[in-house]
Amino acid sequence: IFTDVHLNNEAYRNLEYLCEHAPGRLLGTDESILALNYLKDYFEEMGADTVFLQEYTTPAWLHHKTEVSILSEKCNIRLRADALGPSSSTSDNGLVGNVIEVQGLEELKELDPEEVKGKIVFYNRPVNMTLVNSFRIYGSAVDQRARGPAVAAELGASGVLVRSVGTRIDTFPHTGSTRFKDKKIPCAAISTVDADILSDALKDNPLLQVKMIIEAEALEEITTYNLIADIKGSEFPDEYIVVGGHIDAWFNSPGAHDDGIGCVQSADVLRIFKDLGLKNRRSIRAIMFMDEELYQSGGNAYAEYTKEYNIKNYLALEADAGGFTPVGFQVDAPDSIVSIIAAYQPLLQPYGIHYIRKGGSGVDIYPLKQSGVPLMGYRTDSQRYMDLHHSAYDTFDKVHIRELQLGSGNMAAIIYLIDKYGLD
Amino acid sequence: IFTDVHLNNEAYRNLEYLCEHAPGRLLGTDESILALNYLKDYFEEMGADTVFLQEYTTPAWLHHKTEVSILSEKCNIRLRADALGPSSSTSDNGLVGNVIEVQGLEELKELDPEEVKGKIVFYNRPVNMTLVNSFRIYGSAVDQRARGPAVAAELGASGVLVRSVGTRIDTFPHTGSTRFKDKKIPCAAISTVDADILSDALKDNPLLQVKMIIEAEALEEITTYNLIADIKGSEFPDEYIVVGGHIDAWFNSPGAHDDGIGCVQSADVLRIFKDLGLKNRRSIRAIMFMDEELYQSGGNAYAEYTKEYNIKNYLALEADAGGFTPVGFQVDAPDSIVSIIAAYQPLLQPYGIHYIRKGGSGVDIYPLKQSGVPLMGYRTDSQRYMDLHHSAYDTFDKVHIRELQLGSGNMAAIIYLIDKYGLD
Repeated sequence: IFTDVHLNNEAYRNLEYLCEHAPGRLLGTDESILALNYLKDYFEEMGADTVFLQEYTTPAWLHHKTEVSILSEKCNIRLRADALGPSSSTSDNGLVGNVIEVQGLEELKELDPEEVKGKIVFYNRPVNMTLVNSFRIYGSAVDQRARGPAVAAELGASGVLVRSVGTRIDTFPHTGSTRFKDKKIPCAAISTVDADILSDALKDNPLLQVKMIIEAEALEEITTYNLIADIKGSEFPDEYIVVGGHIDAWFNSPGAHDDGIGCVQSADVLRIFKDLGLKNRRSIRAIMFMDEELYQSGGNAYAEYTKEYNIKNYLALEADAGGFTPVGFQVDAPDSIVSIIAAYQPLLQPYGIHYIRKGGSGVDIYPLKQSGVPLMGYRTDSQRYMDLHHSAYDTFDKVHIRELQLGSGNMAAIIYLIDKYGLD
Repeated sequence: IFTDVHLNNEAYRNLEYLCEHAPGRLLGTDESILALNYLKDYFEEMGADTVFLQEYTTPAWLHHKTEVSILSEKCNIRLRADALGPSSSTSDNGLVGNVIEVQGLEELKELDPEEVKGKIVFYNRPVNMTLVNSFRIYGSAVDQRARGPAVAAELGASGVLVRSVGTRIDTFPHTGSTRFKDKKIPCAAISTVDADILSDALKDNPLLQVKMIIEAEALEEITTYNLIADIKGSEFPDEYIVVGGHIDAWFNSPGAHDDGIGCVQSADVLRIFKDLGLKNRRSIRAIMFMDEELYQSGGNAYAEYTKEYNIKNYLALEADAGGFTPVGFQVDAPDSIVSIIAAYQPLLQPYGIHYIRKGGSGVDIYPLKQSGVPLMGYRTDSQRYMDLHHSAYDTFDKVHIRELQLGSGNMAAIIYLIDKYGLD
């Protein structure tokens, strides 16, 4: 397997195509459909036994424009900003307001609600860079983005700005999803550099005004798809080992590491089985899930479909944690299954798998958990990931071909072992 | 320690200085001395207890110019090339000759020596990309560079060209050292792209001629230095725990990963002990070794100095295997000592140290082995290293600040533990 992956660059070329021709491929965009069709053709050319688009309907949200500026007598200062999804739109003239800077949700909640009313709330707590794993660094500040706008809206704020949740001080806004309760307000992430600029400006003039223009569109229902491709199993063709990533990416991002790479690696797993003539007892199913980022509608739609047609998913593996050098697999399953899979770790140690342990898997496959499907997540070296996550910095050139290939190889290898020896 | 390293960017800034102001800092160059003096100032400002240049003499070799072209009736085709060290010079008019392409030393040795005489030998075996560890990939072809010119010279060849030993198909020549016996001839590495161009051109016209111009200078004796900085130990000030990297870098390279980063990380270990007020029982000694690349004169000079003054090196740790995300430490010492050090691995696991095991250490500290000093090598994720090793591609922007900082942290932590609990 590992000889093959290092001599084959199809996955790398597929990723280049996604990043160049279908950047910003968020749910509901033409780019998202272009990306699906491109990989659909790839699976068909590869000779997969079944290739189809699994249709479903979902609400959607489309971004058109974000502009944020500090208003000033002499000239306005434009801040680099991207709306959060699903931000509400401002009027065409924009939303103008005073700004109240806080270091987090708790600080906001302790303020007099009268002070917050009508203001633009600016969450500016930086991430905690002293943590080692960058997903934990992300976790140290992402509550401001995920829940901050809802809390501010409840308190009567007119809009929200959030310091980008990333590991660099740079000019790239990192967007992401936020959850509202009843009331939606305009909200956007600004880059870490711009957050510092705004914070400094507020120290000079606490009464300064900021103008936000956001044009976005909330759609009640659209039709979209997951892409599914199978290689039939010889013994248990009706049992599926799922391997997948999500095809969508934020509107501001080429989506190389998040998660173009998970898609092309999953597709590469099928290619490896085909090219090497590996005999799979169960069917191997690659899924390119739609809409991980906004409403997780693709993962839910596949779980529904599975229930409706009584499809047995034997196991599901997701690659959605960056495409750097492999470090391990996490398994979300009963301990007995975790130990069966963990026993393969020494075999994969030479290829960079330092651990196979109990832990979270992936957002798209998570809805399968209620049917008792053992879930797995592929994990890679995290140091560079939060530099680029959900931003325009997540470009194809950040992906290293050998790191990508080692991922495909390890994913194919663990699936091969699980299929061959079973989980009993 | 790890909180401190992630909040301090001095090592990163020091590396930026070395790459920008002292690129190509090979033994005997002004840049090599500039780099030493810059870090000497840094150690002094830091408040190290002793900072000094350890003077020694050595032969040296200076590169001035490499030009390699395919001669053609219409126009000459310039090949991107850098001389190997210590190549001999050509005449000012250059060396012109027919080319004989081989896939390695064995193939050359099997040829009729009459065929080789007077020709330019072109070693063109690619690396074996199917290997996982990139140091092993390097090992799959580096014999052509290290021993190829000597073998060709014995057979009467007039010059040697070598396909660059790297993991990319690109236009960067990767130079490196080569060992001659009695007879020296002009020799150079050409980039992998240019190796393919030359190979194709030879298929079209096996009688084509190549012109090599190399200007280099072999110096019988120069005076140069290792830079040494100590923090005195409280209990055993006369026992030294050495941590180091090499300050020199090939003439064609900024030397970011090889090995500017090993130097700044070693310096950072001293800073960490100072800043955090860690009490060291033994003296901690940082050494910036001169001349790892060409003659290994710095490492040998330090070992000589150690013997002459009867200095006890308690342990030596070298960082010269790239500055990517940490993966482990290797220990070159008796098994009993390996197991004492390996017992600390679980403590460092959260910071990326997946293994501490018996293995090679570093070229500069290796001469201490004959005095029985336990040796250690810091190891990082290798996938990207051979893309840039010994080439102009080894630039500051290839280094990630958090990956660098994790290295300093782990090096400081293992030294702290070894110093505190000893090796008995």
